[in-house]
Amino acid sequence: MTAAASALGRPARFISLEGGEGAGKSTVLAALRAALEARGETVVCTREPGGTPLAERIRGLLLQADGDAPTPPAELLLMFAARAQLVSTVIAPALARGDWVLSDRFTDASHVYQGAARGGDAALIETLERRVVGIEPAMTLLLDVPVAVGRARIAGRGAPDRIEAEHDAFFDTVRGAYLARATQHAERFRVVDASRPADEVAEAAVAHLRAHLEAMG
Amino acid sequence: MTAAASALGRPARFISLEGGEGAGKSTVLAALRAALEARGETVVCTREPGGTPLAERIRGLLLQADGDAPTPPAELLLMFAARAQLVSTVIAPALARGDWVLSDRFTDASHVYQGAARGGDAALIETLERRVVGIEPAMTLLLDVPVAVGRARIAGRGAPDRIEAEHDAFFDTVRGAYLARATQHAERFRVVDASRPADEVAEAAVAHLRAHLEAMG
Repeated sequence: MTAAASALGRPARFISLEGGEGAGKSTVLAALRAALEARGETVVCTREPGGTPLAERIRGLLLQADGDAPTPPAELLLMFAARAQLVSTVIAPALARGDWVLSDRFTDASHVYQGAARGGDAALIETLERRVVGIEPAMTLLLDVPVAVGRARIAGRGAPDRIEAEHDAFFDTVRGAYLARATQHAERFRVVDASRPADEVAEAAVAHLRAHLEAMG
Repeated sequence: MTAAASALGRPARFISLEGGEGAGKSTVLAALRAALEARGETVVCTREPGGTPLAERIRGLLLQADGDAPTPPAELLLMFAARAQLVSTVIAPALARGDWVLSDRFTDASHVYQGAARGGDAALIETLERRVVGIEPAMTLLLDVPVAVGRARIAGRGAPDRIEAEHDAFFDTVRGAYLARATQHAERFRVVDASRPADEVAEAAVAHLRAHLEAMG
């Protein structure tokens, strides 16, 4: 754990899902939600970038494929602007109420996409995480899938957005950066082999959730 | 000058205008442009937040008065996202061509509005200025006007946007913070008394431009 990460709050009811395209995050999110709701918990599901009206409009700016695409520094700051809004208007209030929060991606995605994959300013990302975001998930499920398998799964979803249209080498870098991050932050990362059928992946994710619940006591 | 500021590039052909609401920046901008074009210079005029298609869309998010208004940290990051895009796609290329750039507001506005007036994270603003923006104007004209005079001038312009609708105490803070910044960065700030008639204000601004041109040799 880095010095920066140790300064972050880590609320027990805050879980994130990470993974490349076609890893099956939506299916897993639904399974985790169902497992928690079956225990009588209230669950807030969100996604990044997005999750608030303003953050969804920022998402629209990030994913547009036309003319004035954001430069890498602008992309990084837009991501953190959306995240700042999401944390203060949705995630923090939900956790304060005692609800669970399941987020489809969180700050790890910026370390991986804007940092490692696009060569962004890693020190700036750490500064923004510490000074603007302030929290990290208690558990992060990394749905790991070979790039070719993920690409094949999303092939049928229609026209790719700006990020989906990146080439395979980019996604290889993304996968490697996610796995490296899981090793660096092994205390909260759980890596799930997402190349298996969707129901098996969901089952593995729910098993990690149950272990987390037991550890919470 | 702070250590952070001393690390910034300061291109001679880059001038910014700062000032509160109703200070007359548009009139001064037009006068400076005319004075430079009369000498055969090519002038790129821009404004903040905005000045590129993406940055203008970010401006729309910042000025909206409806529901999910940006929290102070989100506002700060949106401002710097727009500025990053503006610098790399408009300002830096124009300066590289040898053009002049006149900007209606630049990073000083973030120090004043998001920093001093909204109590934002001053250290984060300095970090973003240094790591993302990287340049500051060679000359910054501060059009200083008493709050009541500025408010009276904009009273006829139609419905106020989110920032214009702030109360007078906010604008007093803004004015004081601009004047403090002009003192701290006296080497590039020129304070113009903008309570005078518009043609006198423009004349004073053009006199500062001529002095800057003479200093450039």
